Amino acid sequence: MSDYPSIILEQAVNQMASLPGIGRRTALRLVLHLLRQSDEEVEAFSAAFTRLKHDVIYCCECHNISDTERCSICSSTRRDHTTICVVENVQDVMSIENTGQYNGVYHVLGGIISPMEGVGPKDIEIDSLIERIAKGEVQEVILALPTTMEGDTTNFYIYRRIQNAGVEVKISQIARGVAVGNQLEYTDEITLGRSIINRTEFKG
Amino acid sequence: MSDYPSIILEQAVNQMASLPGIGRRTALRLVLHLLRQSDEEVEAFSAAFTRLKHDVIYCCECHNISDTERCSICSSTRRDHTTICVVENVQDVMSIENTGQYNGVYHVLGGIISPMEGVGPKDIEIDSLIERIAKGEVQEVILALPTTMEGDTTNFYIYRRIQNAGVEVKISQIARGVAVGNQLEYTDEITLGRSIINRTEFKG
Repeated sequence: MSDYPSIILEQAVNQMASLPGIGRRTALRLVLHLLRQSDEEVEAFSAAFTRLKHDVIYCCECHNISDTERCSICSSTRRDHTTICVVENVQDVMSIENTGQYNGVYHVLGGIISPMEGVGPKDIEIDSLIERIAKGEVQEVILALPTTMEGDTTNFYIYRRIQNAGVEVKISQIARGVAVGNQLEYTDEITLGRSIINRTEFKG
Repeated sequence: MSDYPSIILEQAVNQMASLPGIGRRTALRLVLHLLRQSDEEVEAFSAAFTRLKHDVIYCCECHNISDTERCSICSSTRRDHTTICVVENVQDVMSIENTGQYNGVYHVLGGIISPMEGVGPKDIEIDSLIERIAKGEVQEVILALPTTMEGDTTNFYIYRRIQNAGVEVKISQIARGVAVGNQLEYTDEITLGRSIINRTEFKG
């Protein structure tokens, strides 16, 4: 006999537990919570995800999630369209937007090059990035990928592709160093070592 | 402007974040995970919850979640129908079943009396419990409610209702004491104090 008193309940728990980081016990708790809600609320809960899957669009320019063909950032006249910030995913755009420190546009790769996970340059939006740059209006490309080996590989690959395309464009990457507010004592050796090598001029 | 690049995305995140213990950042991660799945998978995910809400039945006898009018435990001839274990909710039935130590039937109250949260005796399945007992076939009622003030209140209320109904039935409650495998040093004072008062005979 199954552990669950109902097959329908078990199926709902299986679906909930298919989400990353949600174990079976948590899934059961969430499903029983849903069961206590009204019919309309459960209907709205379910509909939100099918609607998302059916109706959401990826911006034709930057590949960010969007409600319109061209996203609100790419279609804004107040943004600097000569600067493109290259990021791995949608969350990264939201994180950078939240800083309020960036006024350019984005390019969402939808992943990074990872031979271990079988992700090659053709699986992510690199060709479309080179096309955007080749149009000649872009003045700076900011590489804002994770500071991991995969991120570094992708940074280098993009750098080479831009060089090969023969376009005159400034390529920069986000600063790496000791996080603001951190004690040196608790900073890992690689970060600390590089922060000394890549020291910047002190403007008093 | 909203923090989210898409209203549809935001609505899906809102729905996911309405689940207990799921914050907005986790909700976004889960929703973006769903977005990477196939149409069929997202459809199956959503359908599981509407189906649960529409099709799930509560057993007419014990009020546990069930696929049939009478649940598999209540309709089993191998269970002892003269013993009823009273529990707060569906999870409790599953927990006790998992111990493999109980062969009677259950009664799911669907809550416990809590004046603080406005839950009175009429809001939970106490009347139907008294009716089941009044039929005269039940020999023992095991109270397996949480060992909290609300649980104690509910235990006492049920005890009085059974007395008033004038039915001859044994009423017991689950043993309270030091959890198996625990050090006395780390057991709270109330539990330890009661475990001395309610000591049981040592059978060597």
